[in-house]
Amino acid sequence: MIEALRQLVDSSGLLTGTDIGERYLKTRGYGTAGIPLCVVRPKSTAEVSNILKLCHVHGQTVVAQGGMTGLVGGGAPLGGEVVLSLERMNKIEEFDADGRTLTAQSGVVLQAAHEYCDQRGFMLPLDLGARGSATLGGVISTNAGGVRVIRYGMMRESVLGLEAVMADGTVMTSLNKMLKNNAGYDLKHLFIGSEGTLGIVTRAVFRLRPKPKSINTAFAGLARFEDTVAFLAYLESTLGGELGSFEVMWGAYDEFVRQRCPSLRPPLNAGQAFYVLLETLGNDPARDGAHLEEVLANAMEKGLVADAAVAQSEQQRAAFWAVRENAGEGYRALGPLCAYDVSMPIRSMGDFGERVDASIGKAYPGATTLVLGHMGDGNLHVVAAVGSGTPETHKRIDDIVYGIIRDLGGSVSAEHGIGTVKKDYLAYSRTPEEIALMRMLKRTLDPKGILNPGKVF
Amino acid sequence: MIEALRQLVDSSGLLTGTDIGERYLKTRGYGTAGIPLCVVRPKSTAEVSNILKLCHVHGQTVVAQGGMTGLVGGGAPLGGEVVLSLERMNKIEEFDADGRTLTAQSGVVLQAAHEYCDQRGFMLPLDLGARGSATLGGVISTNAGGVRVIRYGMMRESVLGLEAVMADGTVMTSLNKMLKNNAGYDLKHLFIGSEGTLGIVTRAVFRLRPKPKSINTAFAGLARFEDTVAFLAYLESTLGGELGSFEVMWGAYDEFVRQRCPSLRPPLNAGQAFYVLLETLGNDPARDGAHLEEVLANAMEKGLVADAAVAQSEQQRAAFWAVRENAGEGYRALGPLCAYDVSMPIRSMGDFGERVDASIGKAYPGATTLVLGHMGDGNLHVVAAVGSGTPETHKRIDDIVYGIIRDLGGSVSAEHGIGTVKKDYLAYSRTPEEIALMRMLKRTLDPKGILNPGKVF
Repeated sequence: MIEALRQLVDSSGLLTGTDIGERYLKTRGYGTAGIPLCVVRPKSTAEVSNILKLCHVHGQTVVAQGGMTGLVGGGAPLGGEVVLSLERMNKIEEFDADGRTLTAQSGVVLQAAHEYCDQRGFMLPLDLGARGSATLGGVISTNAGGVRVIRYGMMRESVLGLEAVMADGTVMTSLNKMLKNNAGYDLKHLFIGSEGTLGIVTRAVFRLRPKPKSINTAFAGLARFEDTVAFLAYLESTLGGELGSFEVMWGAYDEFVRQRCPSLRPPLNAGQAFYVLLETLGNDPARDGAHLEEVLANAMEKGLVADAAVAQSEQQRAAFWAVRENAGEGYRALGPLCAYDVSMPIRSMGDFGERVDASIGKAYPGATTLVLGHMGDGNLHVVAAVGSGTPETHKRIDDIVYGIIRDLGGSVSAEHGIGTVKKDYLAYSRTPEEIALMRMLKRTLDPKGILNPGKVF
Repeated sequence: MIEALRQLVDSSGLLTGTDIGERYLKTRGYGTAGIPLCVVRPKSTAEVSNILKLCHVHGQTVVAQGGMTGLVGGGAPLGGEVVLSLERMNKIEEFDADGRTLTAQSGVVLQAAHEYCDQRGFMLPLDLGARGSATLGGVISTNAGGVRVIRYGMMRESVLGLEAVMADGTVMTSLNKMLKNNAGYDLKHLFIGSEGTLGIVTRAVFRLRPKPKSINTAFAGLARFEDTVAFLAYLESTLGGELGSFEVMWGAYDEFVRQRCPSLRPPLNAGQAFYVLLETLGNDPARDGAHLEEVLANAMEKGLVADAAVAQSEQQRAAFWAVRENAGEGYRALGPLCAYDVSMPIRSMGDFGERVDASIGKAYPGATTLVLGHMGDGNLHVVAAVGSGTPETHKRIDDIVYGIIRDLGGSVSAEHGIGTVKKDYLAYSRTPEEIALMRMLKRTLDPKGILNPGKVF
């Protein structure tokens, strides 16, 4: 197999044995890792197709890899696979300013695509912390989310067309460039978010948006959960299309930041039950900042918001976001962590926060439970530190958190996917009929089960 | 079969023979119509499931029907099918203001859903001319588009979750309510836009948006196609999220309106090469109108726009839209028509307009060819009147229009779907590999081929 693969790529296209670096062995999440047979690094769709044809004939398993920044082990080899890394397929192929599209290969790093678009007055809206390593193919395969979903949707909504190589090597080129195209089934959705189990995405066409001309960022403190819900509704009805982010942090997270993250500077006083970080993306720099201040003043007058601050400089804006995103030093100080990415109807979030805190605290007295997330999207993250990081502890806390999610009709994975990490809990959020249909699709598109086996289900 | 079906529904749930009214026999488009075996009108998902179980066992074909306003014959029986009309499944089940979702059965008429949401301060953004008869299930099954896609996307983007009954009667309930849910494959996309060939949609959860507080509408005249492209880009970068519609009419359409539609009042003088109808959906009534006037004045100063008018009343707004949408009297005066719904990259639209006019004019001297459409979405409509409406004439003009679309890498169906009318041209826009994958999905989800046979491919 290795020798046959060697014929299909150039001299630096195949890695074996000790040449296989750490980056191919595990993802950022805590998924299990095994030793792959080898790593192939194709440079074109034709090479990907040839590799899959060969593997298909021999029933050889294949795991596709992007930037390896996923958090559920989706890209990690479990043992014996051919790792197919898209890292050398990193060309931006076409930019169309009139049609506002970008066509690029899967291995392009998200940040490189951002910079390319930014220089031309456009934006690819998907943004997340791992932008410096996550690849376009990776964020498509996981249907990534991030901090601007309330305005621009998940990755899925920014993909107009794509090319995927199927299990048997068939190249399915569907590089649609139009917002409207109802000529037959919309096949791209099979490959978006299916974590490399139905095909390997090699190229895609992205919908770009004009770059906003002004960004305004604010922090607000609120006394009650229902105020955060009403505040979101108020912002949506007054700011409409301008609201780009609405991130909520429970009071316990604010306390944690103040105690454990000396480099962070929360802009408001301590003691609020909830903090909201919000951002508007506007097109009228002369007006947008003042308009946001006016809207916040009205929200205070209405009694929705107890305290608020608007960033007055790019530096302050970065400091606001750092409170939300850069608590790494504090997390490290907490010891072993269990982290969650879940979604639920917005009205259930207050209940969820209370129950998750109480239930983990009951099982592990003295536990630290932090809740925060993209409230506008129904997406919360939970970080629990109970002093132990054993698999048994993980499982016990998983059972608690996902059990509450099941009760609330939520999802065990809002934006990270299932991978290996959440496989056991898929049925908490999906019905037997749904899972049966997923398996039916898997058998149809990958009858030999060679694509990323052991992931999702 | 009829007697067995009769046991599954109430006394008014089954129609046969002369009780089968015209509405069940053909759609608005010019698709072929045949005589169905009978019409069943279930009142619940369980009844739909029982009907499909029975039909599946007996290999009985089934065609699902909504409002029958589709334009490609997708809902029309071809002969011998059980017509499954969702018309009695017309309940709105749940409205969630906090989560901004609506859950409803498939048979709810689009306009009824609009009114329900409007009364509660929200909007279901999808809007189109057939709103008074099209049903939610129909606009899901056809992935309908309309005049607000540039801002809110196609129907697909407004569906958070759905329930579909599969060919064998299995109920696939996937009523997700969150913007973010990556727990396994996103199955809803199989059923959205597949024209009832993969399953029958019975219920859905819709994403609502806050109702805009101000709507401003303008008409602009432009001298060159490239100005319309630059004008769109200028509006997107200055109005951003507020731009709701950007509709372009070629000069020949304006002439046609002036000559053939005496009840319409074009707001600008004749003689421009292109006319644009644009609309903003904003949240600041005190500012939005003046802001749009300022943006238009700037566009005139830049030389992009030659002439412009902003609607000063709701009555004027309706008159502006009527020029775009209500040319029925003029169409009737033209005699037999061939109408098209195609999409292409925006930069190819000028070329398309010239070629389609020249090619039809060459084949049929004296022909009237009108081009207009949702330019911001890449979607144009063409209406051709050549004095004959025979199938041979239709085919000859189809070949001309779709041939140009194939050359330009466009789609033979932007928003109407394929149905029976466009089946012969599917391969103009999709590759053999894509069509093979569509057929593979069809065989997997509907192995006996009982769901809407003869449609799409």
